[in-house]
Amino acid sequence: MSAQAAPGFFRSRWVDPPAGILELAPTDLAPGFRAAGAACGLKPSGGTDVGIVACDSEDVGSALLLTRNAAAAAPIRVCRDRCDPDGLRAAVVNSGNANAATGEQGYRDAVAMQERCAAALGLDPSQVAVAETGTIGVPLPIERLLEGIDATAGALGGAGGRSFSEAIMTTDRGPKRCCVRAGNVTLSAQAKGAGMIEPGLATMLCFVQTDAVVADPSTELRRAVAASFERITVDGQMSTNDAVLLQASGTSSEQLPPGLLDVVLLQLALEIVADGEGASRSGRIEARGAATPEEAERVARAVANSPLVKTALFGGDPNWGRIAQSAGMALAGEELHELGAAAIEADELGGDTAEAEISVDLGRGDAAAHVYFSDLGHRYVELNAEYTT
Amino acid sequence: MSAQAAPGFFRSRWVDPPAGILELAPTDLAPGFRAAGAACGLKPSGGTDVGIVACDSEDVGSALLLTRNAAAAAPIRVCRDRCDPDGLRAAVVNSGNANAATGEQGYRDAVAMQERCAAALGLDPSQVAVAETGTIGVPLPIERLLEGIDATAGALGGAGGRSFSEAIMTTDRGPKRCCVRAGNVTLSAQAKGAGMIEPGLATMLCFVQTDAVVADPSTELRRAVAASFERITVDGQMSTNDAVLLQASGTSSEQLPPGLLDVVLLQLALEIVADGEGASRSGRIEARGAATPEEAERVARAVANSPLVKTALFGGDPNWGRIAQSAGMALAGEELHELGAAAIEADELGGDTAEAEISVDLGRGDAAAHVYFSDLGHRYVELNAEYTT
Repeated sequence: MSAQAAPGFFRSRWVDPPAGILELAPTDLAPGFRAAGAACGLKPSGGTDVGIVACDSEDVGSALLLTRNAAAAAPIRVCRDRCDPDGLRAAVVNSGNANAATGEQGYRDAVAMQERCAAALGLDPSQVAVAETGTIGVPLPIERLLEGIDATAGALGGAGGRSFSEAIMTTDRGPKRCCVRAGNVTLSAQAKGAGMIEPGLATMLCFVQTDAVVADPSTELRRAVAASFERITVDGQMSTNDAVLLQASGTSSEQLPPGLLDVVLLQLALEIVADGEGASRSGRIEARGAATPEEAERVARAVANSPLVKTALFGGDPNWGRIAQSAGMALAGEELHELGAAAIEADELGGDTAEAEISVDLGRGDAAAHVYFSDLGHRYVELNAEYTT
Repeated sequence: MSAQAAPGFFRSRWVDPPAGILELAPTDLAPGFRAAGAACGLKPSGGTDVGIVACDSEDVGSALLLTRNAAAAAPIRVCRDRCDPDGLRAAVVNSGNANAATGEQGYRDAVAMQERCAAALGLDPSQVAVAETGTIGVPLPIERLLEGIDATAGALGGAGGRSFSEAIMTTDRGPKRCCVRAGNVTLSAQAKGAGMIEPGLATMLCFVQTDAVVADPSTELRRAVAASFERITVDGQMSTNDAVLLQASGTSSEQLPPGLLDVVLLQLALEIVADGEGASRSGRIEARGAATPEEAERVARAVANSPLVKTALFGGDPNWGRIAQSAGMALAGEELHELGAAAIEADELGGDTAEAEISVDLGRGDAAAHVYFSDLGHRYVELNAEYTT
């Protein structure tokens, strides 16, 4: 494990890390965790497409958040049905095939992945989470994948953060990962996601490992996810496969420092926004002065998901008329007469900042909500018109 | 007025006109109506940007449907506050400036338009509807516009359908208009709209004139709009300025033939979809087997507004996985395990049809709903990243 001077993981203006955090090499893992990635031929490119992350300690505490999409993929249903969410020792991932809308065969395949990984690691299947991402609606080449799981399990190691973080990527421009230390506690995380992003309960794929003591992993993870992955949108599309896993071994015997998980997940969430398929800029919309938190949320999401606002962000145009229009749409049937330029601050859209801020004051109350979003440019169209089943 | 052999207004596969309809020249107006369009310098291009349509008969019956957007434009509020919706003799329109989010000055300007048009035509202001479309949030050059209204009023004529239908255009690729005859009844209509289209109650701008007897214009118009403009989406964006006006003079002494208004509005709505900013294909998504009509509606709109489905339509890719994902998002928290390929028909996405059909069978009940939508391609990004305040 090697400390670095200024790797700059916390690079967003919207992330304010607590003092005293040391950034380690982003491919490092928290002590007591091992990982690996391998290629088993699911991706036409031949890239790495299967990964495993595992905790050495039997006393691991964990939490797992899953998508609420009604057409949830087989691995999501297997996690719901057959995992012990509090005691997950390992996760097995493939990034070539989402195994979604694949019916009962898809479910059996996800179970087979879980069982094969458990057998290879000497665990009970209920201790292994399954995550998959990639094309929807295509049967899984399960034999190839099971062989890949065996190979990956055989390659697990403390230096496997690099190959694991690469093995979970799909249309990502690059890996999203970090390893940070605060006191004696280390926390490492790997995420993927670029399109089909507007998490409902959890989000895309994210794996977090720490040797800290986390008394209530589920509460910690829900709070951190609510302020990070649930605050972002690329294209307003809730995935069939979103999953976030937190594993805490407690071997450092220290508590997780307050705020550490939050800033790591927020920076990773913002990496996903910045890597929104074809994105060139990120935006942060804050709806203030709403009558209720739900109203603020509705307005912020309407602005963040408006293709007219997103193309204006792409074009660097402070088109506040489109912001007023989308805010008004979110409150259809009500009255917002005074939503003029004075109530909307969006000048940075016209600048060359990579992270633009917009605020709307609805003048109806004291509630506020914010959402981070990506712009909509030509690369989005290219990527999504050409990415095929 | 000149009858034509095959002008082909009813060109969509999804429109089935009643028998015996004669298509007249699309720039014709129903007898007893006059219109005109002129240029008063609101558009940088110098194009026609002010229009008036008026009924000669004092016994006109009318109906007016307006957007529900909470940031409704000044002309919408003036129509609500100061028009007699049942007795509208005329409408005045500008297509250079939406007069939206322009505060109290905008409201006074819209009142001034109404009063100037009424004075020029010898009407009471409550008999004149005001409609505006164009850039949001920019003060109206009202003096220039009032002079334009005078000039337009002076040019009104039975042959003015051409200049009027052109004077209401913004980013439209071309005018959307028709004139049809059934028995002794004539009905003419002019519409505009390409972007910021997902009507709530009414939609973009549409003006319909007929010499038929229409006993209850409001009920007739609501029904026809519910099955046409309220079934379409280009970008999921409810405009600040949507308005539809029906005027019926009754001078033919014949009832409006059943279905005639419906097919005219549906074809015009489909013209707007086909002209969705930069669109190259239209789609029709039908959600069947839903538990309730609301559920069917929610699923159909989620599919129609998914940028992933829209880019797949652009790419000619029958990517049913994205259809399953967006349908599942619309029903988040529920279960749709069986939403496999068998439940989704979208093969036409892969063909070269200009009008592709998709259906999803949710297998939960008997309710159904459909929505027409445009694809998402490079031209949408170009138009909207470059169209500025």
